[in-house]
Amino acid sequence: MDSEEIFNAIFNEKNFFMIAGPCAVESEEQIVSAARFLRSRGVMILRGGAYKPRTSPDTFQGLGEEGLRMLAKAREVTGMLVVTEVMDPEHIPIVSRYADILQIGSRNCQNFPLLRAAGSTGMPVLIKRGFGNTVSEFLHAASYVSKQKNDRIILVERGIRTFETSMRFTLDVAAVPVIREQVPYPILVDPSHPAGKSKYVRPLAMAGVGAGADGLMIEVHPSPGDALSDAEQQLDFQEFETLQNDVGRMLSAMGRNVLGIAESP
Amino acid sequence: MDSEEIFNAIFNEKNFFMIAGPCAVESEEQIVSAARFLRSRGVMILRGGAYKPRTSPDTFQGLGEEGLRMLAKAREVTGMLVVTEVMDPEHIPIVSRYADILQIGSRNCQNFPLLRAAGSTGMPVLIKRGFGNTVSEFLHAASYVSKQKNDRIILVERGIRTFETSMRFTLDVAAVPVIREQVPYPILVDPSHPAGKSKYVRPLAMAGVGAGADGLMIEVHPSPGDALSDAEQQLDFQEFETLQNDVGRMLSAMGRNVLGIAESP
Amino acid sequence: MDSEEIFNAIFNEKNFFMIAGPCAVESEEQIVSAARFLRSRGVMILRGGAYKPRTSPDTFQGLGEEGLRMLAKAREVTGMLVVTEVMDPEHIPIVSRYADILQIGSRNCQNFPLLRAAGSTGMPVLIKRGFGNTVSEFLHAASYVSKQKNDRIILVERGIRTFETSMRFTLDVAAVPVIREQVPYPILVDPSHPAGKSKYVRPLAMAGVGAGADGLMIEVHPSPGDALSDAEQQLDFQEFETLQNDVGRMLSAMGRNVLGIAESP
Amino acid sequence: MDSEEIFNAIFNEKNFFMIAGPCAVESEEQIVSAARFLRSRGVMILRGGAYKPRTSPDTFQGLGEEGLRMLAKAREVTGMLVVTEVMDPEHIPIVSRYADILQIGSRNCQNFPLLRAAGSTGMPVLIKRGFGNTVSEFLHAASYVSKQKNDRIILVERGIRTFETSMRFTLDVAAVPVIREQVPYPILVDPSHPAGKSKYVRPLAMAGVGAGADGLMIEVHPSPGDALSDAEQQLDFQEFETLQNDVGRMLSAMGRNVLGIAESP
Repeated sequence: MDSEEIFNAIFNEKNFFMIAGPCAVESEEQIVSAARFLRSRGVMILRGGAYKPRTSPDTFQGLGEEGLRMLAKAREVTGMLVVTEVMDPEHIPIVSRYADILQIGSRNCQNFPLLRAAGSTGMPVLIKRGFGNTVSEFLHAASYVSKQKNDRIILVERGIRTFETSMRFTLDVAAVPVIREQVPYPILVDPSHPAGKSKYVRPLAMAGVGAGADGLMIEVHPSPGDALSDAEQQLDFQEFETLQNDVGRMLSAMGRNVLGIAESP
Repeated sequence: MDSEEIFNAIFNEKNFFMIAGPCAVESEEQIVSAARFLRSRGVMILRGGAYKPRTSPDTFQGLGEEGLRMLAKAREVTGMLVVTEVMDPEHIPIVSRYADILQIGSRNCQNFPLLRAAGSTGMPVLIKRGFGNTVSEFLHAASYVSKQKNDRIILVERGIRTFETSMRFTLDVAAVPVIREQVPYPILVDPSHPAGKSKYVRPLAMAGVGAGADGLMIEVHPSPGDALSDAEQQLDFQEFETLQNDVGRMLSAMGRNVLGIAESP
Repeated sequence: MDSEEIFNAIFNEKNFFMIAGPCAVESEEQIVSAARFLRSRGVMILRGGAYKPRTSPDTFQGLGEEGLRMLAKAREVTGMLVVTEVMDPEHIPIVSRYADILQIGSRNCQNFPLLRAAGSTGMPVLIKRGFGNTVSEFLHAASYVSKQKNDRIILVERGIRTFETSMRFTLDVAAVPVIREQVPYPILVDPSHPAGKSKYVRPLAMAGVGAGADGLMIEVHPSPGDALSDAEQQLDFQEFETLQNDVGRMLSAMGRNVLGIAESP
Repeated sequence: MDSEEIFNAIFNEKNFFMIAGPCAVESEEQIVSAARFLRSRGVMILRGGAYKPRTSPDTFQGLGEEGLRMLAKAREVTGMLVVTEVMDPEHIPIVSRYADILQIGSRNCQNFPLLRAAGSTGMPVLIKRGFGNTVSEFLHAASYVSKQKNDRIILVERGIRTFETSMRFTLDVAAVPVIREQVPYPILVDPSHPAGKSKYVRPLAMAGVGAGADGLMIEVHPSPGDALSDAEQQLDFQEFETLQNDVGRMLSAMGRNVLGIAESP
């Protein structure tokens, strides 16, 4: 499938789809290995951060353009599409050269110049809900993109801040049906960030599917223990396979078409 | 099935089960009609409030003992078990005469004398999570019951208070796997109270099932528009049937045994 | 001042007032020593828990009636009024014999039978805001008391649950002006419970005074390090004096009359 | 006082100070009139938005560079310093030409490229706490600025998202003492944004002063009813005077030195 076929499948035919890959691009070997595995499992869109928005300036900030080149290599090798985060309007030209979909992260959900600049590229834009934002604000954020005559928008619910501390964030599954009523964009669930620990990713993913999400965005790493960020919440290949099998059974019980699955062995 | 068989199925064999019925008992006709319908659909446990904890003293407070007698009538007619809320330790003797399971409501999750008194009856106790309580506090609440040498405890996640206002409460599906790790009690999801509107009950119920809940607790009313409380969130019979069918397909994809379903036509 | 004079000062003349004392009554020596000190500082109302609502059943639950007798002793020795928590409607008769004001704790803010029973005694009732309750629910709780023809109600803001964890609860100072607009009852601030640590009690107390609170409710212990509950947040005598001096200067800048201060040396 | 004297008073001598002005710059007449009034009251720092971060792309977005020129005019006329928000790293060169202090708004509290770029100008940077951010994240945001060898940082608590809806945001006064312990930067309270309505600004301001804030940031408009944004929460001149008098009495009871007050008539 080429990129237009994939975009058609997710934006028009409303196929369920997976976005997966490591939190951050760490080396060519790491990202290519993850991509090969994921592609073999029918996943068509690869995630991986080159510019990382980190709470502290003293932690790993991503490989920048070098990371983008590694993502492009993984795309070339596997034919997958690439989504990666852009944090600064100034980086948009360079990120656009390497990526197929621009990601606006949770902390930038109300970074309006960034939303406008991403929207005006004409490329598909994936927006993660701010962990302090209401659904209404999240949809207004999307309207900063659509106002640029760009309706290829993917929304991602990834958990909000609440008083509960047993996981990192509280996944707000209710956002899925509420958003579905109001806009035609695919709404995905990211179970990795609220889970905070890999063992919780599967139940949150299944909850998202149950709520009617159009897809999942999941952190997968060839060797999570060695990851430079979010080490505890990334799945290894085996865990991803188990999850995908469970999700697949559920989707088929729900009668949903799934992007890419038909092509996996 | 008699009550011991049902308790065995839910506490020991870990069958998935439904608790359903109106928010409040309003008349014999209403509760018996709901019970007949639900029993015909394989539901074995009937809910219905006789003592209602209402935010304002000026709204309908429930029928009290008269409501209990109507519940008993519905039990007699259908053979279903009855769960109903107890708000005051003083009411426990009378509620115990009519009910099979004592319910501690969300506002009483940390009403410790009530938990102790309910636990000491030896009857199964259903505890709803306080909407302002952490999972950890919820489990401590359960330990007030288990300390009375009573381990027949059912826990219900029913949504917490957060900044998001698009639904009435934010259903915290993450509570399901977190609780599962720590205690052996069945953990149910109540999608009706967080939804606030009937149209949202189904996606939240499915999310709860996806997260691995052991059951659902759902408000069903013969004629929701006429209900004296929670009118907007109660399902009618048709909506319940649709929900139950969807849930059933999902449970079977997940390989779960379901209480009572085998007996429905 | 006798009790009617004190009640007149706080309910009718709207004098600013302090309620202070240990979290729990632990011994006669402890409570009498705290009372003597506080009375010497012009404080007219003594707090101290005999029945303690504890999250876990395995921690100190209070001395019960023995604690009530110790409170009565402190009252006899100092002439202070006594406020103490009641958790169970069944305890109201006995608590009423020893206390001047009945306290409904945060966890029981929506324990409606308890509110009704406390209201019907005709005694003043102090209600703490539930940490998961909105101001609107808090005021509805008060209406369960006033509906018993009892308008001697004291409201206490003591912090709510939010995502912020640098203190134990988030003191919602905004509740003070919002409540003031809607009901004529004194609204106090309890800085001890949100602070969680004694060093934060003073700034939160001052914030409450700035917001216009009618009083403060503060945990003071002769020897906080030895306390059986809330050890970290109780003030020692010296800390209380400093706080009281600072608060006094602020109240005088704000032009408020203060109960009891005139009588201190 | 020239700008270095003012910066010395607030960063080194820790004088209490006010920042005031309209939400948005709307016309030269509006901003100059506000500045003249505020300067006559001893306020030395003028606020006013030229680039406005608005939830929806369909509402007033600010006058941009034209607004900056109006701010510069007000500065020229009154000698006040000017603080204004910068939303995009690209705008920093132009904003720097007109402003004395760069403001990072609440929605950009974790916009790390923007924080870095603002820090690297060497100008003082005012950072508002994100309404979804913890105090810890807020302090990490400041470290993105200080890492640029820029320690002239002003922090502003302006309310967080909680379940309480009686005001627009919940002012977290506890942030003041917690931040004071950890960093040497002035910590201000903005009572206007949490209040949402002008009648609540005064009690929240007083609460902030009580908590120990080093200053207040307040929205003041010559004619609030005509404002293009935040009309309901801006104070008129009379309301500001009342507030300032009350605050002044409280600061003097607390023994604090106040910037600029000595110069007012």
